[in-house]
Amino acid sequence: MNIEQFKKEAHQMVDWMAEYFESVEKYPVKAKVKPGDIKAQLPKEAPEKGESFETIMEDFERIIMPGMTHWHSPNFYAYFPGNKSRSSVIGEMLTTALGAQCMSWITSPSAAELEETVMEWLRDILGLPKHFTGVIQDTASTATLCAILSARENLTDFSINEHGFSTGDKFTVYSSEHVHSSIDKAVRIAGIGSANLRKVPVDQEFAMIPDELERMIEQDIKDGFKPLCVVSAVGTTSTTAIDPVKAISHIAIKYKLWHHVDAAYAGTALMLPEMRWMAEGVEMADSFVVNPHKWMFTNFDCTAYFVKDTKALINTFSMTPEYLKTAEDQKVNNYRDWGIQLGRRFRALKLWFVIRDFGINGMQEKLRNHLELASWFKDQLMKRPDFEVLAPVHLNLICFRYVPDGEDDLNSLNQKLMDSLNESGKMFLSHTVLNDKYTLRIVFGNTDVERRHVESTWDFIQKTAQQLTEAIT
Amino acid sequence: MNIEQFKKEAHQMVDWMAEYFESVEKYPVKAKVKPGDIKAQLPKEAPEKGESFETIMEDFERIIMPGMTHWHSPNFYAYFPGNKSRSSVIGEMLTTALGAQCMSWITSPSAAELEETVMEWLRDILGLPKHFTGVIQDTASTATLCAILSARENLTDFSINEHGFSTGDKFTVYSSEHVHSSIDKAVRIAGIGSANLRKVPVDQEFAMIPDELERMIEQDIKDGFKPLCVVSAVGTTSTTAIDPVKAISHIAIKYKLWHHVDAAYAGTALMLPEMRWMAEGVEMADSFVVNPHKWMFTNFDCTAYFVKDTKALINTFSMTPEYLKTAEDQKVNNYRDWGIQLGRRFRALKLWFVIRDFGINGMQEKLRNHLELASWFKDQLMKRPDFEVLAPVHLNLICFRYVPDGEDDLNSLNQKLMDSLNESGKMFLSHTVLNDKYTLRIVFGNTDVERRHVESTWDFIQKTAQQLTEAIT
Repeated sequence: MNIEQFKKEAHQMVDWMAEYFESVEKYPVKAKVKPGDIKAQLPKEAPEKGESFETIMEDFERIIMPGMTHWHSPNFYAYFPGNKSRSSVIGEMLTTALGAQCMSWITSPSAAELEETVMEWLRDILGLPKHFTGVIQDTASTATLCAILSARENLTDFSINEHGFSTGDKFTVYSSEHVHSSIDKAVRIAGIGSANLRKVPVDQEFAMIPDELERMIEQDIKDGFKPLCVVSAVGTTSTTAIDPVKAISHIAIKYKLWHHVDAAYAGTALMLPEMRWMAEGVEMADSFVVNPHKWMFTNFDCTAYFVKDTKALINTFSMTPEYLKTAEDQKVNNYRDWGIQLGRRFRALKLWFVIRDFGINGMQEKLRNHLELASWFKDQLMKRPDFEVLAPVHLNLICFRYVPDGEDDLNSLNQKLMDSLNESGKMFLSHTVLNDKYTLRIVFGNTDVERRHVESTWDFIQKTAQQLTEAIT
Repeated sequence: MNIEQFKKEAHQMVDWMAEYFESVEKYPVKAKVKPGDIKAQLPKEAPEKGESFETIMEDFERIIMPGMTHWHSPNFYAYFPGNKSRSSVIGEMLTTALGAQCMSWITSPSAAELEETVMEWLRDILGLPKHFTGVIQDTASTATLCAILSARENLTDFSINEHGFSTGDKFTVYSSEHVHSSIDKAVRIAGIGSANLRKVPVDQEFAMIPDELERMIEQDIKDGFKPLCVVSAVGTTSTTAIDPVKAISHIAIKYKLWHHVDAAYAGTALMLPEMRWMAEGVEMADSFVVNPHKWMFTNFDCTAYFVKDTKALINTFSMTPEYLKTAEDQKVNNYRDWGIQLGRRFRALKLWFVIRDFGINGMQEKLRNHLELASWFKDQLMKRPDFEVLAPVHLNLICFRYVPDGEDDLNSLNQKLMDSLNESGKMFLSHTVLNDKYTLRIVFGNTDVERRHVESTWDFIQKTAQQLTEAIT
């Protein structure tokens, strides 16, 4: 493909992108295909000869598009959003065109120094303490693994990195019952073991009970374990419950545990001064993660990981073979030493585009709008005796279920309700289980979600719920 | 930014991209900036109000561009290429526009099934055995970590995941002295410890000596260690040395070790039947990694990780909290369970674009051309008594140094030569150390490198070397 062909195809792609953004609401939000449908249409072998771009795009439209779930649809309410914005898309086009691999300062000084700057901006925008230093990771899974590994190495004076688990010590990690699966995974990878992840009971609002945490730590110490790390959640995945960061910090300090704060989704809301209560005490924590790709209008993947002590992080991951040594190593940030992967995309660029395009005010306005939409939706639910809100609504996630009179098997009913809603193609929401209750989760965090979407969603939920009950009775 | 603004800015970005691709040779390959130069020009605080795209792009051109190292320049010969091609760039634009987060089948069925298909294509193109199953990872660092963790869990019946290193067993991992740093890092992360990574001696061609491997395994068994895994390299980082995969496989089978083949760079050359000798015996290995983002014209990041036993991989990483359960879980590939991160980009798309745009023949042609360029360059070096080739040239990486008469400190001279070459801005190459000799590494693997680049590079190297000697004498 020569430059002229590239220009032609890339301009056509931009038109396709614009058309897609304009028409995304018209597609079924959740793909209406069955397992195997897509693969059955793809050739079993790669082509011998190159094919025209026209053919590739035709196949894309015909085969791939019907199997896409549209994360960018304003009616995508499932999980947490994997967000994007138009400025982020353009920023990512630039990252792609430059194609820099940002493992070391020398392999693109601008990438390293823009990352440093943008992380400082973000720290300040979120009201995080000045003694936090940030680095971009791909996902919160990776950042949390970095935290657990730093905790492991810091407590053992970097001896497990060197000698493995050779002393027979047994370590424990703590988080609430509502912990994200990435913490389970990190505890396994780090060689600590799932059985040594203590799930601390939660209160009625699904937030960790600090007294229970302390009790469990003391019991473990008595039983000969070495408590290593506590992970608190500012916004759990199921309900955006807020663990009491301050109380947990005090306990972490008392027992010398690493304290990692997982604010992957909700952390973005710290941009709003009125929401900073969520993270009170964060200045005492050792690390903190927030995903700009979740609610900060930035294309996946982009995770911001902040640490109090960069040395603990770098000493955990640094290694410089001969072929990577450079004259500047002592003066610069070589971000390959700040995480797991050697290779790194130039992710700071899209975040820089987003922050500058929106401005702090623009981002705050969007967030407040999302909170209002959620609040309105919650109010509608509260007005209805046949709907029930199942968790406090701190942000823009609402946990609810349908509780019509005379229906015994509410779990089965609500699962059916969710399936009907999702199969309609009009919206996509996901579920959790709270106190054995099958619970629908709806999140109003998509960059482009507006009041009209939330209103028609509410209408459709009521109608579908009613039809379901009528069909049963 | 509304749709009209997006179209305007994105079309301008395409023009910028095309202009950049056309003019990339004009930029200094390695950025000519000093530590701190870029950061000093960036504001310390994020803007309160949104800024115009014009301003952002002006700042990008003025501040960021001078600090970019141009990985896409045909004169970028350092490390291994972090490649791209125009079809890959367009594919990535599409990934960005769709913004799908591909953790589960349901979150984009097309992404899951296209990944499955493209990995089958790639397996067959590379002549890998049909019993290999592929999954896309971000980087080889991650894939190798997956291999070491799978080895750890497989050998211990998944007990470390569950209980941690509680039995006091001491495990060992083996690789050649020329192992990539990612293996060191993985051994640390997995809790095995650097001290238990055995570096097996290499022969004169820098390839692992199987007898030494076997001797070390036996010694370790005698000493009470449990050998876990051997990593062989098909193309080491320093010299693209080829470890004897077949002999290593036999040893791995004999002692029940997991055998991971690291072909991150050189694996792409298996597309050429005449290069398949490199991986003879690979069908006996347990896992294999190759990076399409290195030499397969695909934008970073895109790593293909193949395993013989998907169950060992999935059992190592799978966990399904309530909020991720779906009705299709038993029938589909949920790739979140095939690696470390929960969140995943739609990376299969760009690889699909590249394979279809080039076709197998087109890719083979490019690779053969790169091999010829390297062969020509090596011939030029061999003709000159004052240059020395320091390692076998199996592929398109040449390790060499300048050895003029009457110069004692060749290491210092060659370091100066490299610095002069890189500071010229005309090219960027990197170094290694072989048998205590400071060695220049030059790789002809960039998508757009042509004979004219290699010729002028060779001219400039000779001229610079001569000037350096003249300046000294």
